[in-house]
Amino acid sequence: MKKLLLQLDGSTRPSVFDRVVAFDGGADEVMSYGGVTPDSVRDLVHGAIFTRGPKDLRHTAIFIGGTDMAAGERLLAAVQQAFFGPMRVSVMLDANGSNTTAVAAVAKIGQAIGPLAGRRVVVTAGSGPVGTRAAGLLAKAGAEVTVTSRRAGDGALAARIRERFGGAVGELPLAGAARAAEVLDGAEVLLNAGPAGVCLVERGAWADRQGLRVVGDVNAVPPVGIEGVEATDDGATRHGAAAFGALAIGKLKMKIHKACVARLFDRNDLVLDAETIAGVADELGV
Amino acid sequence: MKKLLLQLDGSTRPSVFDRVVAFDGGADEVMSYGGVTPDSVRDLVHGAIFTRGPKDLRHTAIFIGGTDMAAGERLLAAVQQAFFGPMRVSVMLDANGSNTTAVAAVAKIGQAIGPLAGRRVVVTAGSGPVGTRAAGLLAKAGAEVTVTSRRAGDGALAARIRERFGGAVGELPLAGAARAAEVLDGAEVLLNAGPAGVCLVERGAWADRQGLRVVGDVNAVPPVGIEGVEATDDGATRHGAAAFGALAIGKLKMKIHKACVARLFDRNDLVLDAETIAGVADELGV
Amino acid sequence: MKKLLLQLDGSTRPSVFDRVVAFDGGADEVMSYGGVTPDSVRDLVHGAIFTRGPKDLRHTAIFIGGTDMAAGERLLAAVQQAFFGPMRVSVMLDANGSNTTAVAAVAKIGQAIGPLAGRRVVVTAGSGPVGTRAAGLLAKAGAEVTVTSRRAGDGALAARIRERFGGAVGELPLAGAARAAEVLDGAEVLLNAGPAGVCLVERGAWADRQGLRVVGDVNAVPPVGIEGVEATDDGATRHGAAAFGALAIGKLKMKIHKACVARLFDRNDLVLDAETIAGVADELGV
Repeated sequence: MKKLLLQLDGSTRPSVFDRVVAFDGGADEVMSYGGVTPDSVRDLVHGAIFTRGPKDLRHTAIFIGGTDMAAGERLLAAVQQAFFGPMRVSVMLDANGSNTTAVAAVAKIGQAIGPLAGRRVVVTAGSGPVGTRAAGLLAKAGAEVTVTSRRAGDGALAARIRERFGGAVGELPLAGAARAAEVLDGAEVLLNAGPAGVCLVERGAWADRQGLRVVGDVNAVPPVGIEGVEATDDGATRHGAAAFGALAIGKLKMKIHKACVARLFDRNDLVLDAETIAGVADELGV
Repeated sequence: MKKLLLQLDGSTRPSVFDRVVAFDGGADEVMSYGGVTPDSVRDLVHGAIFTRGPKDLRHTAIFIGGTDMAAGERLLAAVQQAFFGPMRVSVMLDANGSNTTAVAAVAKIGQAIGPLAGRRVVVTAGSGPVGTRAAGLLAKAGAEVTVTSRRAGDGALAARIRERFGGAVGELPLAGAARAAEVLDGAEVLLNAGPAGVCLVERGAWADRQGLRVVGDVNAVPPVGIEGVEATDDGATRHGAAAFGALAIGKLKMKIHKACVARLFDRNDLVLDAETIAGVADELGV
Repeated sequence: MKKLLLQLDGSTRPSVFDRVVAFDGGADEVMSYGGVTPDSVRDLVHGAIFTRGPKDLRHTAIFIGGTDMAAGERLLAAVQQAFFGPMRVSVMLDANGSNTTAVAAVAKIGQAIGPLAGRRVVVTAGSGPVGTRAAGLLAKAGAEVTVTSRRAGDGALAARIRERFGGAVGELPLAGAARAAEVLDGAEVLLNAGPAGVCLVERGAWADRQGLRVVGDVNAVPPVGIEGVEATDDGATRHGAAAFGALAIGKLKMKIHKACVARLFDRNDLVLDAETIAGVADELGV
């Protein structure tokens, strides 16, 4: 019986990236749908759950992608509402790769620094999809997390992350890359989760800073997000800190993404979102 | 050489249900197209028939689905017009699962009651796609069929079914579930072909009715179509009749659907519509 | 690792023809996209090149089809712009089958007449996608080529072909099928590259014409493009010339098309356009 992955993508054209990784993760066939909205989910999901018998449902699974994580979350909710008691299949949410990227970044940090409990961590661009998830996973692991964004300050962003993940999360505004030092007070870890091609932390703000032990950056497109980190850095020492660049994080992200696709077909009731994807990464020993 | 199934679907998004069953029926790959209209059929069909040599054409086939059986029939006509002498492939029409569901329901009735010749059968909601086909197949097998619908009465519905399938078909209006007894006079078989979640026959209209030997219902969504029939009934005695619920009929429908997909690849000139799908079911010994 | 072909098609519905040939050429999976415009290419290509490691990229490739060769050329340019240094995959352009058809027609001519250097060749409908490519390939091989079209005469068409392919190309207007003799002066080869169902050369214009040794026609739909040539002719003598009809050319075209798809997966940096497809045909010994 073929392992079938139903790809639900909010973008007009379903992601080629996600299709390729789906195949490489072990799906035999990918049924791709673009322009998927919450109200169109039910029929698609029913087609997936009412075709194979209960004992065979683990051979069908759903992947929710797209470029918009908020839209992806709405699709995930609609998918779960469309399930019918035991008639359900495993589902993974990874819009824009945000979950697997955040999990990979957090795993790299953990490799470098050991247990995260009590560590002071700053996540720049913590309002984006990778940032909120990375911050949440770090907080859930016991770190004291500060997220920054241009508009942070009223506490709404930090509250939103705490509500989902628990733990200790605060927020600070970051006015510009040159003023990044202001948010790094006491930080042991700096993770940039900002968009491609935007430098959020100038070299002078973090280089050889006392107490700073790890820097990570998910932006591979020059200029990178943390000046002085190379995209290929995979633990190299840069200005006194262990540095992880976007390509090293991305390589681990791919491994996690593929492993998650494979897991979807182990059973029919998995829901792979940030926390459970982190669990898969733990099991991989990454 | 891969067994390729071209899925033509009138709905915007090609049915996931049909894709999954296509794979489970033995297609190696499914090429899915949504929003297909009769005027767009020719190019799609030519792509299917002008690529492989005549002796290999049996490895390509066409499945016509969608939610609208009338639209499906127009697509089937357009597909057959696009064939070019011996350059043709096998094709199956099963919009909304109507053909396979009707065949499965009729097969269940035959299992319970034996030869259908001369049996008096009532098909409620006989104007819908499942109902017209089930009524037609029953009439073709020699039953005396009465179809009901809210608007029946002028004979047009019965005439349409007779024109396609031959046999004896009459029609009666059914004003409501509470008045269903009025249409059951002399009936040995009652089949409800009505839509999901609509009760068309109240319990009092059929329970322990003299002469009534079989009741079948294709509606799995509560309230079921014939009050007192359980969706899982597979020949259980209910109020004096052998009862077949929608899940039992649906299970057989899936078996027939998959067998039909497999047959498409045996040769390149099959046309699987209601009557020929019934023939496949006969060969399966269901 | 599966061989994945990304099909980019400018038409709303990606070509079934191209999908079937892709499978028959050796692709394990075809990821099909319709309505593709140059500005939508980048994300699709990035999904193809940023998923697998450099040494595995040869297992992914791109096929550009559609019904419009000019649009296909724009897509090819956009695909190549989206590559990122060594992060690239092999790509084939064959919108409307024009490249493989032109190569097959030229190969048939070469089989019949030997080396093309110095041969005088007339290509009718030389302004179309098959015609420009066939004329260019013939010129590149050293033939003295005259292309005709209804509007030819100012030299722009011939100049465009020379610019791309080099060699000797002239042009003449062709006022109608009855006046085709006017353009055949001194011709050893006549190739019709005109559209389906249009006769461009009447029998009287070419039959038993002194010096004319080969006639080829890519139009399979009656009336064929060169009156007196049968679609199935594969070197048969017709009125003193070796004749090649559209079905014989088409059969070779299919062989070349499939071989090209297979080649795409040999390495990750092939660009299969007219000239390189001709190279594949040479290697096949066709």
